[in-house]
Amino acid sequence: METVKVGLVGFGTIGTGVAKLLINDADRITEAVGRRVELTRVCDLDTTRDRDIALPEGVLTDDLSQITDDPEITTVIQLIGGTEPARTIMLQLLESGKDVITANKALLAYHGPELFNRARELGRTIAFEAAVAGGIPIISTLSGPLQANRCQSMQAILNGTSNFILSQMEEKGVSYDAAVAEAQRLGYAEADPTMDVDGSDAAQKLAILAHLAFGAEVDWTDIPRVGIDAVHVDDLRYANELGYSIKLMAIADLTDEGLELHVSPTFVTQRSPMSKVRNAFNAVRVIGHAVGRTFFHGLGAGQMPTASAVVGDLIDTLLGRTAITFNALKLWSPERKGPPLRDPKQIKSKYYFRFMVDNRPGVLAEIAGVFAKHGISIASLIQHEADADHEPVPLVIMTHAAPEGSVQDSADKLDELECVRAKLIRMRVHD
Amino acid sequence: METVKVGLVGFGTIGTGVAKLLINDADRITEAVGRRVELTRVCDLDTTRDRDIALPEGVLTDDLSQITDDPEITTVIQLIGGTEPARTIMLQLLESGKDVITANKALLAYHGPELFNRARELGRTIAFEAAVAGGIPIISTLSGPLQANRCQSMQAILNGTSNFILSQMEEKGVSYDAAVAEAQRLGYAEADPTMDVDGSDAAQKLAILAHLAFGAEVDWTDIPRVGIDAVHVDDLRYANELGYSIKLMAIADLTDEGLELHVSPTFVTQRSPMSKVRNAFNAVRVIGHAVGRTFFHGLGAGQMPTASAVVGDLIDTLLGRTAITFNALKLWSPERKGPPLRDPKQIKSKYYFRFMVDNRPGVLAEIAGVFAKHGISIASLIQHEADADHEPVPLVIMTHAAPEGSVQDSADKLDELECVRAKLIRMRVHD
Repeated sequence: METVKVGLVGFGTIGTGVAKLLINDADRITEAVGRRVELTRVCDLDTTRDRDIALPEGVLTDDLSQITDDPEITTVIQLIGGTEPARTIMLQLLESGKDVITANKALLAYHGPELFNRARELGRTIAFEAAVAGGIPIISTLSGPLQANRCQSMQAILNGTSNFILSQMEEKGVSYDAAVAEAQRLGYAEADPTMDVDGSDAAQKLAILAHLAFGAEVDWTDIPRVGIDAVHVDDLRYANELGYSIKLMAIADLTDEGLELHVSPTFVTQRSPMSKVRNAFNAVRVIGHAVGRTFFHGLGAGQMPTASAVVGDLIDTLLGRTAITFNALKLWSPERKGPPLRDPKQIKSKYYFRFMVDNRPGVLAEIAGVFAKHGISIASLIQHEADADHEPVPLVIMTHAAPEGSVQDSADKLDELECVRAKLIRMRVHD
Repeated sequence: METVKVGLVGFGTIGTGVAKLLINDADRITEAVGRRVELTRVCDLDTTRDRDIALPEGVLTDDLSQITDDPEITTVIQLIGGTEPARTIMLQLLESGKDVITANKALLAYHGPELFNRARELGRTIAFEAAVAGGIPIISTLSGPLQANRCQSMQAILNGTSNFILSQMEEKGVSYDAAVAEAQRLGYAEADPTMDVDGSDAAQKLAILAHLAFGAEVDWTDIPRVGIDAVHVDDLRYANELGYSIKLMAIADLTDEGLELHVSPTFVTQRSPMSKVRNAFNAVRVIGHAVGRTFFHGLGAGQMPTASAVVGDLIDTLLGRTAITFNALKLWSPERKGPPLRDPKQIKSKYYFRFMVDNRPGVLAEIAGVFAKHGISIASLIQHEADADHEPVPLVIMTHAAPEGSVQDSADKLDELECVRAKLIRMRVHD
């Protein structure tokens, strides 16, 4: 039986998972590919750390040229994080004639056009199922079985860390800080979780999905994003009382006025499967004009779910399916024309507002007056009877749908009111 | 730009949906395929009925040879239902050199080995995404992105008609008969819904999925199946009281003792997204050793969701991806060896029992005695206080996990008890 030689660059958590699959499940992968798949070279700066998987003698190296200079290695799995040196290494691999598989969403969000155009010039391919939503095969699904559809809407939970934190707060009633600490203890959050909790990670992934589903070429930093750090455990309690859960949603909606994109903590109705997405899981809902509503749920990160996606891509690449898909889709090419982005201020949504207000007559009239002035209609209101000595008191208002611009203007005015004692909290509401 | 000629056999509901996509979305499909896709011939016995889509002059014919004899038509969408003449037509198409796309699960469940082996002999391909779970791309997902996994378990709602009926009963509190009538009125159920509600349709689909995921070669009639016709609206009420919904589940579980397969109405915990699958939707949960738990949800039937899957397959076939997948997977070939089926009597599960019993002392002791004698442990019990004059009264018992064989034996004994006044109801429970 013929042997195909594969390289791996970046022998960290995911790289170790990939090596485990390639070594421990060699028979199954050989059967799937129809050739023996040999992990010929693994390159990492650290060649001494114990990684709980035994590589054959001579496979591990810190010298990338052992991969780039070996013409028998046709396919390389590239698992370096961040943008540099990941970008430079990716270009070196392509230029030395390798097809590349990556799990690096930041690399694609920043350098997708450069990398994909270079791969096309060189007649090579890039596969990236693992870069978005880990074990959920959303890249394959958008690239293949949903191709007959005009995609209308996509709603996704793309950051497992944020979802874990929100789940902990909702289910255990713990504070944001305590939930972050627990996520760090369990390895779901890094020491500095900023990119996860501020919506940046989800926005990078949304930019990639929006390109695939809508052809939109988006700079991810142009996607409006709100993080989960402002969510208080009280908000989760009110959400439950009103029949919602709070999720960090990444949204892409195609309208006649352009493509709406945003990332923010959102009230999700408990009637929807999206509200049942717990802990480190991810989920993607895609609505197509023919297929209707579809929903995909799975682990968005972690060693083996990500490795599963990477090895799936490897099998696809070795079988030749990736080359067909890559050439047909023309991702990030000048040929691909997507819709314009809609002005975020025009995006309409229902909103949840929570205020801490003085407990005195006239407060509600003042607040309602600001909403009225901005044309925002109040749908419902919660104010629990408060202890008279206890000030300020919480006030919750649910609005009817209104444009983000008016909502932002009214929020600015409301924050200026003397009766509003702490910065108000607001979130979108999805029924 | 090059043109590729496509034929369509069977111009019913799905065929009309496919024609709509190919004609109304011609630009998008051309872009996806890189060639102009022309629906050259549509063959149906009925060439006069108005179908709400205008075919160009001369396309519609009742003469199959206009497709089989035209060497320029390379790919044919075959949408004839049932097993004959669908099987004969499928063989004719393959033998005249066409790649075939089908949505017919019964055809594959009965004649998969014959058709796939013939296609391989002839160097042709068969694509069948639309045959199982309509708009959910489960065939593609198992054939591609999940290939790195040893599949451990699959749990699915595969029959939209049954799910619609159970949803109506649960949400509106209507009887089984009323829910069936409503399903018929809305077109979700046929005049004779037997194959849908007795579990046959789901078992045929499960046989196909079990072959893909586990390599098991199963005669679908060997899959134990229980239909939903015995589910009473009272059972749905008790299920809710206990924190469950009732779904017609198709299950495949790989154990050390073989592959467990069965189709039956099942208590599904309301904590699971599976419990939120409403109306005509389908869902599939796949657990792989690397990817962990994945869950896919979408419309399992209907004109456009099914047409979406068919046209997705058409794009795959025309691009050449189907040929790669078809040759790599070797479905229903003698080379593919799967696990043995486990004796259904050995399959362990928790169970729900509902009895209508005499309202007198000693009844509970008699019933508990039968369970004890068969080694079945009672986990919990509901007996609401009854009107003394009102006989018989309902008694609900939840058991711990026990093998189906013992459960069946105890059920037979329990049904013989004088105090048990109507045939008992029992269902599996999934936490």
